[in-house]
Amino acid sequence: MSKPLILISNDDGITSKGIRVLVEAMQTFGEVVVVAPDSPQSGMGHAITIGDTLKLEKSDIFDGVDAYECSGTPADCVKIAKHYVLKDRKPDLVVSGINHGSNTSISVLYSGTMSAAIEAALEGLPAIGFSLCDYSSEADFSHTVSHIIKLAKETLKRGLPKGIALNVNFPAIQKEEIKGLKICKQADAKWQEEFDERHDPYGRRYFWMAGEFVNFDKGTDNDQWAVDNNYISVVPCQYDLSSKSAMETISKEWEL
Amino acid sequence: MSKPLILISNDDGITSKGIRVLVEAMQTFGEVVVVAPDSPQSGMGHAITIGDTLKLEKSDIFDGVDAYECSGTPADCVKIAKHYVLKDRKPDLVVSGINHGSNTSISVLYSGTMSAAIEAALEGLPAIGFSLCDYSSEADFSHTVSHIIKLAKETLKRGLPKGIALNVNFPAIQKEEIKGLKICKQADAKWQEEFDERHDPYGRRYFWMAGEFVNFDKGTDNDQWAVDNNYISVVPCQYDLSSKSAMETISKEWEL
Repeated sequence: MSKPLILISNDDGITSKGIRVLVEAMQTFGEVVVVAPDSPQSGMGHAITIGDTLKLEKSDIFDGVDAYECSGTPADCVKIAKHYVLKDRKPDLVVSGINHGSNTSISVLYSGTMSAAIEAALEGLPAIGFSLCDYSSEADFSHTVSHIIKLAKETLKRGLPKGIALNVNFPAIQKEEIKGLKICKQADAKWQEEFDERHDPYGRRYFWMAGEFVNFDKGTDNDQWAVDNNYISVVPCQYDLSSKSAMETISKEWEL
Repeated sequence: MSKPLILISNDDGITSKGIRVLVEAMQTFGEVVVVAPDSPQSGMGHAITIGDTLKLEKSDIFDGVDAYECSGTPADCVKIAKHYVLKDRKPDLVVSGINHGSNTSISVLYSGTMSAAIEAALEGLPAIGFSLCDYSSEADFSHTVSHIIKLAKETLKRGLPKGIALNVNFPAIQKEEIKGLKICKQADAKWQEEFDERHDPYGRRYFWMAGEFVNFDKGTDNDQWAVDNNYISVVPCQYDLSSKSAMETISKEWEL
């Protein structure tokens, strides 16, 4: 039986530790092709490159793996992988990550990791974004590997509903502390920004955006609760943003 | 009675024609503050600036309007407006646009215009993104103004459900051709990319991403149908991406 074809991307860039762990995990059962950014693309959301050019270079960074580094965003990487690198070959699965840092809750909107997965879902491909709640470049991913392989194989076996990509977050804990996996919803939380005002040596004002994560969600059915309580969170994310209930309310009540 | 405070941003940049039309429309009944990108940010999706600094400069581009140009993305603009420029003043409404070009269907994911509106919704503010289905920098926005004022006033009066921003698209037609306004869902369509491979004068390979819009949606209840049939489309968009139905399917059927 031929191995499943697995496309891998990420947003921390092709040299990050997280993507290497993901490549090695997928190599245990799949044929792997990597198209990943040539530099970090964190916080790029679903950005794409319009009005500028893209570069794509072959990379020998992973032994025995067909890999490319691209100057674009994670969404660009999936597009150029699908329509140029793989062309007539359709991947059986697209995985993105493993992100260095949490993508729970509202971070899914800002996440380059998830934009790669959602871009793949748009192409009708089963896709998963994996993140570890640890921003360190030397983070310990060892406890994630067996779960990632299991999730990837189950996704290959079952497929995903149309229009859905999975957002998977791992708590940064030891393997034996993991209590299991929770299918859950996106927590109702946000980033509360602060702007740190400074001046450069020429007297010009500039800002650093900083902030803290504020969780309004008191429930136990959301991804932030899951990772805070030693569970792996799995949120099925849809790219159809239409709200049926808001459509009804506005249609009935507004005067337009 | 004091005028409502209206924050305006966009993704085409502070010098674009579309934002000027929007500023002039909102000035007819509101107190306007503008924080917009200092350069075009089309296709930036929900990108934010992480690991780099932001600049913010006062602008006198609009007579009698408190305006600022920011080096960041549309989402950055709303964040710095809310937490630095306006600080203790809460806008009654946030409007973004008018975008030069369509943001129907899946374009909502790539849209900087809509990311500004969604960022405002995240802050609990009523927000609308306006787009005209004409990419020209000299596009004719005259037929949009009365509808924009009506929608803005109705949104101020009714508020929006929690977690919702409106995505409004205008067909590029004459005023008298507009058939009305449709509350609708996001069309099931996508961009089909092609990569145009070239070489620079030094022999290095690069690509232009091009593509065409492919509409799979045969219904008449979606935004693409609406603008194609001379209606103004209004899609209530939610930033909670969780799919309840996919959560159920996976919880019941998968072995995890």
